[in-house]
Amino acid sequence: MNYSIIFYILGYVLKVEGIFLLFPAAVGLIYREKEFLSFLVCGLALILIGVLATLKKPKNQVFFAKEGFITVALSWVEISLFGALPFLISGDIPNFTDAFFEATSGFTTTGASILTNVEALSHASLFWRSFTHWIGGMGILVFLLSVLPIAGGATMHLMRAESPGPQVGKIVPKIRDTALILYIIYSVMTVVEIIILICGRMPIFDAVTLSLGTAGTGGFSIKNSGLSEYSAFSQYVIAIFMILFGVNFNAYFLIVRRRFKEAFIEEARWYFCIIAVAVTIITLNTLGVFKTAEESFRHALFHVGSIITTTGYSTADYNILYPELSKVIIVLLMFCGACAGSTGGGIKVSRIAILIKTVKGEISRIVHPNAVKKIRFEGKGLDGSVVGSISVFFAAYFFVFAASLLVVSFDNFDFTTNFTAVTSTINNIGPGLSKVGPSGNFSEFSKLSKYVLSFDMITGRLEIFPMLLLLSPATWKRSITVRKRKNAER
Amino acid sequence: MNYSIIFYILGYVLKVEGIFLLFPAAVGLIYREKEFLSFLVCGLALILIGVLATLKKPKNQVFFAKEGFITVALSWVEISLFGALPFLISGDIPNFTDAFFEATSGFTTTGASILTNVEALSHASLFWRSFTHWIGGMGILVFLLSVLPIAGGATMHLMRAESPGPQVGKIVPKIRDTALILYIIYSVMTVVEIIILICGRMPIFDAVTLSLGTAGTGGFSIKNSGLSEYSAFSQYVIAIFMILFGVNFNAYFLIVRRRFKEAFIEEARWYFCIIAVAVTIITLNTLGVFKTAEESFRHALFHVGSIITTTGYSTADYNILYPELSKVIIVLLMFCGACAGSTGGGIKVSRIAILIKTVKGEISRIVHPNAVKKIRFEGKGLDGSVVGSISVFFAAYFFVFAASLLVVSFDNFDFTTNFTAVTSTINNIGPGLSKVGPSGNFSEFSKLSKYVLSFDMITGRLEIFPMLLLLSPATWKRSITVRKRKNAER
Repeated sequence: MNYSIIFYILGYVLKVEGIFLLFPAAVGLIYREKEFLSFLVCGLALILIGVLATLKKPKNQVFFAKEGFITVALSWVEISLFGALPFLISGDIPNFTDAFFEATSGFTTTGASILTNVEALSHASLFWRSFTHWIGGMGILVFLLSVLPIAGGATMHLMRAESPGPQVGKIVPKIRDTALILYIIYSVMTVVEIIILICGRMPIFDAVTLSLGTAGTGGFSIKNSGLSEYSAFSQYVIAIFMILFGVNFNAYFLIVRRRFKEAFIEEARWYFCIIAVAVTIITLNTLGVFKTAEESFRHALFHVGSIITTTGYSTADYNILYPELSKVIIVLLMFCGACAGSTGGGIKVSRIAILIKTVKGEISRIVHPNAVKKIRFEGKGLDGSVVGSISVFFAAYFFVFAASLLVVSFDNFDFTTNFTAVTSTINNIGPGLSKVGPSGNFSEFSKLSKYVLSFDMITGRLEIFPMLLLLSPATWKRSITVRKRKNAER
Repeated sequence: MNYSIIFYILGYVLKVEGIFLLFPAAVGLIYREKEFLSFLVCGLALILIGVLATLKKPKNQVFFAKEGFITVALSWVEISLFGALPFLISGDIPNFTDAFFEATSGFTTTGASILTNVEALSHASLFWRSFTHWIGGMGILVFLLSVLPIAGGATMHLMRAESPGPQVGKIVPKIRDTALILYIIYSVMTVVEIIILICGRMPIFDAVTLSLGTAGTGGFSIKNSGLSEYSAFSQYVIAIFMILFGVNFNAYFLIVRRRFKEAFIEEARWYFCIIAVAVTIITLNTLGVFKTAEESFRHALFHVGSIITTTGYSTADYNILYPELSKVIIVLLMFCGACAGSTGGGIKVSRIAILIKTVKGEISRIVHPNAVKKIRFEGKGLDGSVVGSISVFFAAYFFVFAASLLVVSFDNFDFTTNFTAVTSTINNIGPGLSKVGPSGNFSEFSKLSKYVLSFDMITGRLEIFPMLLLLSPATWKRSITVRKRKNAER
C-alpha cells in the first residue's frame, strides 16, 4: 500500500473541505449569526492542516485499484468526520454521534436527519447541510481530480472508485477535463433551478438550499413540514429538476455537443418509462386521497421523482396518506435508484435493466438452446464480466443489507421501520416508512444503529466495495503482500 | 414443442396422484368418516383418466430442456388443481380458491393455510394435507422417474427441472436408480421419525401426519395451536428431524455407503454453522421471554430448524413473543433456505455460500490484482457459468418477488404482512410475521392475492424458471421455432 500518496490526497481533501466551509461562514455573516464563527474557524483550521499535509508531494506515485478504493473510502469518512465539527462547535447539534450522522447523511446525499426541529438551526448550518449534498452529489474526489496536481493511473482509479454505476465512461480522453466538464454542467443546472424558483417567488435562501439539495439528490429540507408548504409551481419545478439530475450526465454533455440522438441512451429510456408507469399507478391509486386529481398527480410525480432519484424530499406524508400499493411502489423505487453517472444513489436503473435482459436471455436460451444470442445494452454486447460484476455487487449489497438490518433490529422498533431505515440509508434516500417516514426522523435510534446507518450511507454512496475493502483484513495484511513480492522476485 | 409426450407424462402424473388419493380414503374409512367417499371417488376418477391418457405411448420421444421445464411446471399446476378437488367435494374447504391454495401449499411444502379452524377438518383431509407435503417434498416427478417407462434425455431434463439447487448430481449413473434410492432413504427416515414420536407417547395419527410434514419440510399442523401443546421430547425430536431433512440427501446416500468423510460436504458445514449461530443468538435474545433457559433454547432450536428448512411448524407465536432482533433473524433465515438436494425450499445454503465466496474473491482480486485465485466450493473450482446461473436465478427471484409484493399490496394490509406473506410463500415456508404470523393465516387475502401467492409457491418450489417459461410468450411462439428450423435447413 502506498501510504504516502493516500496521506497526500487525504490532506488535499481536507484543504478543499476547508475552503467549502467558508461558504456557510459567509452565509452566517450575512444573517449576522454568531454561528458563522465556528464555520470560519473550522474552515481555516482544515485549510491549515491540509496545507501542512500537502507541502511535500510524494515521490512514490504508484497507485493501483486498491489504493483508489481505500483513498476514496477514507476521504468520505474524513469529510464526514470533519464536516460534523461545525455542527458540534456551533451547538446546533450538540452531540457528536448525531452531528456525524447528519454530516454523513449530507455528503452521501441521503438526507436522513436526526433533527426533530430543523427550523431551530442557524442559517449557516442549514446552508452547510444543503451544501454537503451538492458537494457529495457529484463526488468530492471528482471535484479534486479537476484541481489535483497528480496524474496517471491514480486519477482513473479514483474516478472509478467514486463514480456510480456498473461501467465508468470517460467523456473526453483526459480525466481532468471530464471532471471539469461534469462540474460545469452540474453548476449551470443548479443555477438555472435557483433562478426559476426565485422567479416563482420562493425566498432566495430557500431557493438556493433546496436547489443544492435537488442537484445532489440529497433531500435535507429547511422546514419541519418538508416541502408541503411551497407553491404548486415550486413543487413541479423541483420535481422536474430532481428527475433531470437523476439522468446520466453524459447525456447532458452529448446534448451540449448537439449529439441529441446519442444522448437519449437506453438507460434513460428505461428510467423515464419506470417513472411514467409509477406516476400513473400512484396517481390512480391516490385519487380519493387528495382533493383534486391535479394534486394526486403532483404528489405522485414529486414522490416518484424524489424516491427514484434517491433525493428524499416530500410534499405530503405518504407514510400516512398513501394506500399500501403506493407505499410498496415507493419501497421498490428505493431499490431501483437513478441512472448510473448521475448524482442519484440506489442500485441504478442500468443494473436493473441488464438483469431483466439477462433473465429474458436465460429464458430464450432454454427455449432455443442452439440459437446464439448475445444480450445487448446501450447498443453494446454485454460480456460475462459486466453481468458477473453486477451479480457480485448485488451479493455484497445484500450481505451488507442483512447485517445492518440485524444490528438495527437491536433497537426493537417494528420491522417496517428497521427494514426501510436500512433501505433508505444504503440507497441514500432519506425517509422510509413507519417511524422513519417523511414526518419522522432517525433521532430515536441507538448510537450503535446511528453509526451502522452512517456506515451504510457511505457504503451505498460508494457502491459497497471501497468500504468493504477498508474493513477487510486482506487489505491490511502486510505479510501476504511481502510474501507475494518475494514470490515474484524468485 | 413435443406435445404428445408432455400429455403422456401429465396423464401418468394423474394416475399416480389417483393412487396416492386412496391413502386418505383409507384413513377416512378407519375413522368411519363420510369424507372417505370423496377421496375414493376422486382417486378412482383420476386413475381412470390417467390410464386412458397413457394408453398409447408416444412415438416421438424427442425431449429437450424446454419440454422438461414445461412438463414439470404443468405437472405441479395439475396436481395442485386435482389435489384440491377432494377438499372441495368433501365440503371440508367449500371454496375453490381456498381449496386450490391449500393443495398448492401442501404439494409445494409451504404449509401456509387459509383455514381458521384446522381441528374442524376430517381425519381424511388432515392426512391428505400432510401427505401432499410428503409427496411434494421429494418431488412428484422424481417419484415418477422411478416408475415411468420412458428413458433417455427426458428423465435427466425432468430431474433437472424439478430438483432444487444450483447443480444437480446423479448419485448413481442411472436416473431411475437415483430416484429410487432417494425415495428409499426418504421413506426410511420418515418411518424412523414416526416410530420415535410414537415411543414418546404421541398419538399415532399425530405422529404420522407430523412426520410426513417434517419429511417434506411442509409445515401443516393438525392443531390450531400448532405444535405448542406437544411434549418437550416431541418438540426436540421434530426439531432434529426437520434439520436432518434439510441436509442434501446425497450425504445420506454416502453415509449408507460408509463414505463418511465425503458425506460431510461443505454446504452441510455452512448449514450447521448458520443454525448454531442463529440458535445461540435467539436463545440469548429470548432468555427473558420464557420461564427457563431450556425453554428459550428449545423454541430457538425449533424455530431456526423450522424456518431454515422452510418447514414452518411453530411451538410458540414468535410474532408476538420474540424481540425484533430474533424476528429479523427469522426473516433472514426465510431467504437462506436449506441445502440443495434436500426437501427444503428457499434460496439454498450453497447459493448463499457461493455468493459470499464470490464477494471475498472480488475483494482479494482488487487487493492482489495479479494473483490468479479460483473460487472453490465443495472441493471443485467454480467456473463463471455456475456463478452466472446463480445471479440469473437471483434476478428472476427478485423480479417475481417484487411483482408479487405489488399485487398483494392491493389488499391494503400492512407492509410487514405483505412482505412476509410473499417471502413465506416464494420460499415455501408457511408462516410470516404480523397478520400471517404463526397464529395467523392467509384467509383474509383477496382471491387475486391467493392465486398470486399460489403461483409464488409453485414458482419457488421449482426455482423460478419452469413457471417463468410457462408464462413466457417465447415458449409458445410457433413462428420462431419454424423460422429457426428453416434457417437451420439453409
